[in-house]
Amino acid sequence: MRNEIRCRAVEIENSLSPFVSKKFELDDVIEAQQFDREILNYIFEVALDMEKIEKSSSKSQMLKGYLMATLFYEPSTRTRLSFESAMKRLGGEVLTTENAREFSSAAKGETLEDTIRTVEGYSDIIVMRHFESGAAKKAAATASIPIINAGDGPGQHPTQALLDVYTIQREIGTLDGIKVGLVGDLANGRTVRSLAYLLAKYKDVKIYFVSPDVVKMKDDIKDYLTSQDVKWEECDNLMEVASECDVVYQTRIQRERFGERVDLYEQARGKYIVDKNVLKVMQRHAVVMHPLPRLDEITVDVDEDPRAAYFRQAKNGLYIRMALVKLLLLGW
Amino acid sequence: MRNEIRCRAVEIENSLSPFVSKKFELDDVIEAQQFDREILNYIFEVALDMEKIEKSSSKSQMLKGYLMATLFYEPSTRTRLSFESAMKRLGGEVLTTENAREFSSAAKGETLEDTIRTVEGYSDIIVMRHFESGAAKKAAATASIPIINAGDGPGQHPTQALLDVYTIQREIGTLDGIKVGLVGDLANGRTVRSLAYLLAKYKDVKIYFVSPDVVKMKDDIKDYLTSQDVKWEECDNLMEVASECDVVYQTRIQRERFGERVDLYEQARGKYIVDKNVLKVMQRHAVVMHPLPRLDEITVDVDEDPRAAYFRQAKNGLYIRMALVKLLLLGW
Amino acid sequence: MRNEIRCRAVEIENSLSPFVSKKFELDDVIEAQQFDREILNYIFEVALDMEKIEKSSSKSQMLKGYLMATLFYEPSTRTRLSFESAMKRLGGEVLTTENAREFSSAAKGETLEDTIRTVEGYSDIIVMRHFESGAAKKAAATASIPIINAGDGPGQHPTQALLDVYTIQREIGTLDGIKVGLVGDLANGRTVRSLAYLLAKYKDVKIYFVSPDVVKMKDDIKDYLTSQDVKWEECDNLMEVASECDVVYQTRIQRERFGERVDLYEQARGKYIVDKNVLKVMQRHAVVMHPLPRLDEITVDVDEDPRAAYFRQAKNGLYIRMALVKLLLLGW
Repeated sequence: MRNEIRCRAVEIENSLSPFVSKKFELDDVIEAQQFDREILNYIFEVALDMEKIEKSSSKSQMLKGYLMATLFYEPSTRTRLSFESAMKRLGGEVLTTENAREFSSAAKGETLEDTIRTVEGYSDIIVMRHFESGAAKKAAATASIPIINAGDGPGQHPTQALLDVYTIQREIGTLDGIKVGLVGDLANGRTVRSLAYLLAKYKDVKIYFVSPDVVKMKDDIKDYLTSQDVKWEECDNLMEVASECDVVYQTRIQRERFGERVDLYEQARGKYIVDKNVLKVMQRHAVVMHPLPRLDEITVDVDEDPRAAYFRQAKNGLYIRMALVKLLLLGW
Repeated sequence: MRNEIRCRAVEIENSLSPFVSKKFELDDVIEAQQFDREILNYIFEVALDMEKIEKSSSKSQMLKGYLMATLFYEPSTRTRLSFESAMKRLGGEVLTTENAREFSSAAKGETLEDTIRTVEGYSDIIVMRHFESGAAKKAAATASIPIINAGDGPGQHPTQALLDVYTIQREIGTLDGIKVGLVGDLANGRTVRSLAYLLAKYKDVKIYFVSPDVVKMKDDIKDYLTSQDVKWEECDNLMEVASECDVVYQTRIQRERFGERVDLYEQARGKYIVDKNVLKVMQRHAVVMHPLPRLDEITVDVDEDPRAAYFRQAKNGLYIRMALVKLLLLGW
Repeated sequence: MRNEIRCRAVEIENSLSPFVSKKFELDDVIEAQQFDREILNYIFEVALDMEKIEKSSSKSQMLKGYLMATLFYEPSTRTRLSFESAMKRLGGEVLTTENAREFSSAAKGETLEDTIRTVEGYSDIIVMRHFESGAAKKAAATASIPIINAGDGPGQHPTQALLDVYTIQREIGTLDGIKVGLVGDLANGRTVRSLAYLLAKYKDVKIYFVSPDVVKMKDDIKDYLTSQDVKWEECDNLMEVASECDVVYQTRIQRERFGERVDLYEQARGKYIVDKNVLKVMQRHAVVMHPLPRLDEITVDVDEDPRAAYFRQAKNGLYIRMALVKLLLLGW
């Protein structure tokens, strides 16, 4: 039983890499906040290696003989496939459950802790998606093998946050000093909330919130940013923000959050669309990001523009997950 | 973005195989019509190799490090397992989704194109089953990796058509000059329609249609056969047809097509049964085929007769799929 | 077509192992009764090897190139993952179907025999879970590859029975002369029934039945034990039994068996709880077992006691399944 999330830097004397003078220990991946700037840099360096491995013709067998269990209490095909691909691209193997909630012993009343104790007997690492906030932390406290949180309800989805920051790093070249416009559903989007947390770890970042009134960014994040000396601004002019920003991070208005109020949904959803006109005012080096799936909040004619970074961003999810799985199983 | 299905023969100068003086390039497997007689022969030759590989005790690792994604928008356990087995028999790996429709981002309104762009980032080849005709073609136009159509609604199921023709070749030794009786539900059966298309590529084929009135072969196929100079005939005497044919291809009357009209279904379903009596009039070299699953349109006492080819036919599906996956990933 | 379950000892002349003077042939694993004491010993020896293999850092590739199909007509995530882990820990590969009942051709009316004939064409061994008693035997009679019964309705779940006996052997060191308290739902629990059958194969075993009135052990088992000269006793004092026994085997009261009678369920469920007080009277060498999942019939504070053997028991399921898969595919 472990009560803290361990993710700490450790001095090592004779590093073989000139770039890395420290190594860190990573036990679990539970929440975006567990990572500091230095550790993010380490992870991004490994992710870059993973990109090379994935693109090379000789396939890696680095994780041969290792078994990942993807324990999904609610389905999320995209995330699951991304993790399973990450594991298999490194030669590892996977046990899959996509309906752990409905089908497993959970339905008979078994506690999450008991399920984890059983599943950890069958595998070397567990990737867990759960419908309850805090479930991943609970699992990590029980398990003696690494746990990766692949989303726990309204809580965290840390690998998404990591891949977002990694994408900005890869696309813009730096995180310090960047201007980011967060657009769309800022009230319900787990993604933009986690991203705001992580951006606060970098210097001179400026964040613009562009969202319909009904789904504005909540005060906790605003207060947090203020406390961290991160400049932020609410703005209702997408064109203006787009012309200023290095990153326009668009999100989907989540219909499921509006219940019966289809009118409010329809109103919110059409308000800020990233289209060719937005591209026109964007700077040459700037990019459009989106956590996907997208509906029509980015028009398809944007896809062909080199600044449309969202499919590269999805692919970066693979590299980040390869890096995390590698680090959790083999260490630095 | 590619707008045509590529599947063409290319002259090569110094072929190592005495049997193959050309090679062909295959980008995707979308519809039965994309294959001509020559390419079918090439594929069948590779399928025969695959049979040897599968039966040998030393396991092939030909596709080691390659990843197939089986993206099934509607479940089809049999077809999915057949493709996954094909991949794994050659040392490759698989990412599985059986409920892409219900569970994936599709439910949130994502376009097929966006899903394909994401999934192609995780895998090397996509096997797709969809509920809409034309979906596979759309996917292939988007993807930069090979797409195999594992059935798209009322549209195509090309690997079934290929395995059917391959089975006739293996069982009868030739396709030219054969007589084939297509029996059962000829109106709704995707299988028999595709088979008719492919048979038209061979010489002196004669086709008999034997079906209850409510599920007769439609005019488009009849017209096509006529236009290709293929002889065909409708006939309501199964015994007569069975005694003439090299292949009796029985199909299941699909209850789901009859809706409320259970009476019509029951009437249609009992009309043409392949049983021991039919076997008695069949020639010694002739075979009974069926795409499976079967209900009672072939009685179980037929199974033990060496002319019952339907389980061998199902197994041929494995060899054909091994061949296609190999050709799409490694080339000739 | 095979009509008998083969599992027999065969003399071999020059055994390399000093402990094994015979080998046995195992075709299928269908029911607990097919194993005699001698064969159980052989299997347990292999399971012990498997434990060493699983714990060693060099991963086994013993079953490389072999394919298991897990054909589950009803979901049982725990059992499925255990088998799939067993296969993959030995380097083998898996084809998975968790909803064979709902999704497969079975829904269209295909017989189990036809499904088996198709699936055996895609794999080397089939692990089957079915909702009907006798289904596994039927499958084994059809298949030419090994079948493992992973539970067939109210029928058998032989690998659970084997892992239970193996756990007693590992924890207590012997089966002869032991005292076992079977507690909880003895009427409906497949597990305790199979365990009673297997215990009867050992000498001087004494069994205590401790259960609420509504779920008492049925007469068939009692009569069987009597016929085999196994001493048994019904007892309503858990503390007394716990102080006597080597093994306290607790089970879950299955709510689903009570239908509308929630009152009876609630009454039965609270009656015999294994808690710290029970631990206090238990002997030092004794253990608490449970087939899992557990609700509150064992309190969580028992978990930390070294005599709480249920998670080790679950892990033993992996070793037993590794052993069986190895024996069925590679032989002794």
